Amino acid sequence: MTTAGTAHETTTRTGPAAARQHSLREHNLELVARAVFEVPEPLSRAGVAAATGLARATVSTLVDQLVAARLVRELPAVTGGRAGRPAVPLVPAPRSVVGLGLEVNVDYLGVRVLDLTGDVVVDRVVPGALHDSDPALVLHRLGDLAREVCDDVAAAGMTVAGARLALPGLVDPRTGLLEVAPNLGWSTLDPVPLLGLGDLPVRIANEAKLAALAELAGGSDVAAPDSFVFVSGDVGIGAAIVVDRALFLGERGWNGEIGHVVVDPAGPRCSCGAFGCLEQYAGKEAMMRAAGLPPDAPLAALVGLLTERDTAPGADGAALPAGRALGSALADFVNLLDVSTIVLGGAYTELLPWLRADVEAVLADRVLAAPFVDLEVRAAQAGPQAALTGGAREVLRAVLADPAAWV
Amino acid sequence: MTTAGTAHETTTRTGPAAARQHSLREHNLELVARAVFEVPEPLSRAGVAAATGLARATVSTLVDQLVAARLVRELPAVTGGRAGRPAVPLVPAPRSVVGLGLEVNVDYLGVRVLDLTGDVVVDRVVPGALHDSDPALVLHRLGDLAREVCDDVAAAGMTVAGARLALPGLVDPRTGLLEVAPNLGWSTLDPVPLLGLGDLPVRIANEAKLAALAELAGGSDVAAPDSFVFVSGDVGIGAAIVVDRALFLGERGWNGEIGHVVVDPAGPRCSCGAFGCLEQYAGKEAMMRAAGLPPDAPLAALVGLLTERDTAPGADGAALPAGRALGSALADFVNLLDVSTIVLGGAYTELLPWLRADVEAVLADRVLAAPFVDLEVRAAQAGPQAALTGGAREVLRAVLADPAAWV
Repeated sequence: MTTAGTAHETTTRTGPAAARQHSLREHNLELVARAVFEVPEPLSRAGVAAATGLARATVSTLVDQLVAARLVRELPAVTGGRAGRPAVPLVPAPRSVVGLGLEVNVDYLGVRVLDLTGDVVVDRVVPGALHDSDPALVLHRLGDLAREVCDDVAAAGMTVAGARLALPGLVDPRTGLLEVAPNLGWSTLDPVPLLGLGDLPVRIANEAKLAALAELAGGSDVAAPDSFVFVSGDVGIGAAIVVDRALFLGERGWNGEIGHVVVDPAGPRCSCGAFGCLEQYAGKEAMMRAAGLPPDAPLAALVGLLTERDTAPGADGAALPAGRALGSALADFVNLLDVSTIVLGGAYTELLPWLRADVEAVLADRVLAAPFVDLEVRAAQAGPQAALTGGAREVLRAVLADPAAWV
Repeated sequence: MTTAGTAHETTTRTGPAAARQHSLREHNLELVARAVFEVPEPLSRAGVAAATGLARATVSTLVDQLVAARLVRELPAVTGGRAGRPAVPLVPAPRSVVGLGLEVNVDYLGVRVLDLTGDVVVDRVVPGALHDSDPALVLHRLGDLAREVCDDVAAAGMTVAGARLALPGLVDPRTGLLEVAPNLGWSTLDPVPLLGLGDLPVRIANEAKLAALAELAGGSDVAAPDSFVFVSGDVGIGAAIVVDRALFLGERGWNGEIGHVVVDPAGPRCSCGAFGCLEQYAGKEAMMRAAGLPPDAPLAALVGLLTERDTAPGADGAALPAGRALGSALADFVNLLDVSTIVLGGAYTELLPWLRADVEAVLADRVLAAPFVDLEVRAAQAGPQAALTGGAREVLRAVLADPAAWV
């Protein structure tokens, strides 16, 4: 099987193999860039030398190159400390080299630009109804949107390093093909050329996997645990398995298809062709229908309805019927995988208050190890359309893994 | 999460950390032992020197020590080759240091002894009905059986290096406690002292995990693939996940609990307390009942019945109703894990001809990636009560990881 870095090439770590491939200078450049980007406090050149073990003169030359390449920025010098000489703090350069996240999902298209500091520079999410859509038309529209955004950021002096396209389906990273996205009604196609983005390097990935990477990078409130299952609940439901801060991808990166786990063999037919899949109970459209709303109603409508019911006289918390189905599929996941933290993303982040009691009750009933483990169900921190953030971050991570290409 | 070697300490590899812990001599001794045990053709001392890169004089001293410790045996010298001097082929020593596999399962107790050549020296499997049994009584009986066997092999000049006790439930390797074995009706107990085996080092492990290690070590016909899911079907049903030739254990080694995956929420209550678990459809007793046999009938009775039906006039293959349930739970496993080889062990090995069509049909219907993957369902090669073999092998693997302790 593969872990991230081979299938998705997302978490390649620097090791002996990388050192052999690169020249020594390239390797040292990467070390210096990592020190600037990964140490929380801004380092001076002397600090980088201490952190990397490289000679100060070497560090100084390499830092100059990273500054000239606009990957690193020098802050105003600060005086202090015993050395007497003013130190120049080094930080990731804002609004210079940026990464582009793209996404086609069942009810929206999105484009998001992040810079090296992690700031969102542009965010464009366009609602749509993309069930059984024409991939050429949809990807052309997304490509137009992306080009507009790229033109804007280029006009503002930024350089787009590349893009990741998130898709709600089985992606083959070796061929670049989308094999199937049941809710879009798409199968076996090469999406990148259909974007029409010319020379811009674009790679595709599964939506839930990129969203999980965004989650792993950390939200605003709580640090992500080292290992967790991330469930992305939208019209479709996908998941990603994070083990020791890296994606665990199975043999082809096609794991985490929790949307098609059996909830009830007597249940309704799913877009995948099978019966009683989780998506038919806990997908966004199924939840809307169960609440008496149109399937394409905005999430806010469902949240509004649930809140209203909660505050109605005599109400004691209006649960979503999806909760028990989600709990059942998650119990299977925990029984098969042995994970203790479940992070609920996508629409589930906002709906968790109305799902939690049922999810936790079913987990307690069905997980064999439940009496011996602190199972935790928590809301995702990565924000809406997290795959866009994850995709843009992956582009920038690739830049930092080979800064020499930018020098 | 942990992989094998941390949770079960089963696949610790020799690496820099091991080299630092051991003295240089101990490390070299391990290198020499590995060369003798892992190279398929018997090596001479010169061959070991070539394979390890150690000096011939060093190798000769270390080989002498391994021979004196009865881990390695010298075959009669063979003349030939250009060097002129006769070469002494070195092989794992038969009937010298041996490993003890122990098992409590729902319908049998077992003791198996393997020697360093992989030969089964003793094999004792005692049928029993151990549902809701008294752990103290059962473990005492198994301990008596083990002591008898140990006395016999000691009388034949062999040394028992240690034992592994396989149990059908959640085992905590940190505490040595069995947390729960639903079909035995056992919970939270320390089984080793109850065996009464004195100073013999005994460790516990999950039955399916040990069986999967036996499978990985290779059967008689077909080499095991590098990655697979092993499903051990007995009264209970457990599974193990093998990734790149090592167990993948999840956070605590409690993954693979496929016996408690939801097949039908409206189904019968399971020994675990939940409803419609796979065990209620495809556990051995459920299969016996469905075939109109007593639940504790021997497997041969079911195989006989199915064979008879196959050969009845007009019959076109008597399927087992368990096949569709097993296919459903396996489809969940494949959708969540992305594995392409499923190895069916325990009772399923013999029953596969009557399960295969339904299992494969349900996999084709329910696995999202089925059209793009060659899913393979195969019978285990490791033989009956494979956990006994896996356990004995694990003991011997620990011996070879630290041969200095025997010198």
